[in-house]
Amino acid sequence: MACDDNRQEEDTAFLPRFDGNGLLSAVAQDCETGEILMLAFMNAEALAATRATGLAHFHSRSRGTLWQKGETSGNVLHVEQILVDCDQDALVLKVRPAGPACHTGARSCFYRQLEGEQLVRMDDA
Amino acid sequence: MACDDNRQEEDTAFLPRFDGNGLLSAVAQDCETGEILMLAFMNAEALAATRATGLAHFHSRSRGTLWQKGETSGNVLHVEQILVDCDQDALVLKVRPAGPACHTGARSCFYRQLEGEQLVRMDDA
Repeated sequence: MACDDNRQEEDTAFLPRFDGNGLLSAVAQDCETGEILMLAFMNAEALAATRATGLAHFHSRSRGTLWQKGETSGNVLHVEQILVDCDQDALVLKVRPAGPACHTGARSCFYRQLEGEQLVRMDDA
Repeated sequence: MACDDNRQEEDTAFLPRFDGNGLLSAVAQDCETGEILMLAFMNAEALAATRATGLAHFHSRSRGTLWQKGETSGNVLHVEQILVDCDQDALVLKVRPAGPACHTGARSCFYRQLEGEQLVRMDDA
């Protein structure tokens, strides 16, 4: 991404750069295995709720609401560490998942790989 | 994210779900180390260019143009594998980086962690 605002790059202050819709991208990565579990979006409310509770919260773009990951399934994501990118518009959440991250029951939402025009489920997903 | 469209979840067809701005999220992950290197956006053109060349291309939201990662620096990302999430609106690119992924010279754009309201550079970044 364009990283042309030195303040965001070089300051030690956390100055999250929300986009025109008020959102940041957030990637949840298993802190033990390094597997990427899911990608979702956070507004300021979701970021604050995540930091206050230690559990990953996101903003649902389709429903327009705050959403605690695992609120109904119990498959919450315990946030161990938050990494911030150069221009502060994306986060990596290093998490400890309480169960499968994907609502399909897969460990990760990224359970398929692209082969030609087909999606192939990975054996270890 | 909301994963309520069964076609995207269960079909084996690749049916990328671009958002209202015509974009997908794409996370580049080092295929050897598992480190998350950067997060950017792809429109259909960037996705097609990535698949045609095997080099990561993105769409710059600020400039509104196609952008080959490393085009000027030489620090391209060779795409070894593309993973697709449940609702097909996000991709993980498993990549072999030719050099530091971040324009700051850091191996990853995610070179800082959040501690309170401060960003702290990680020792191994």
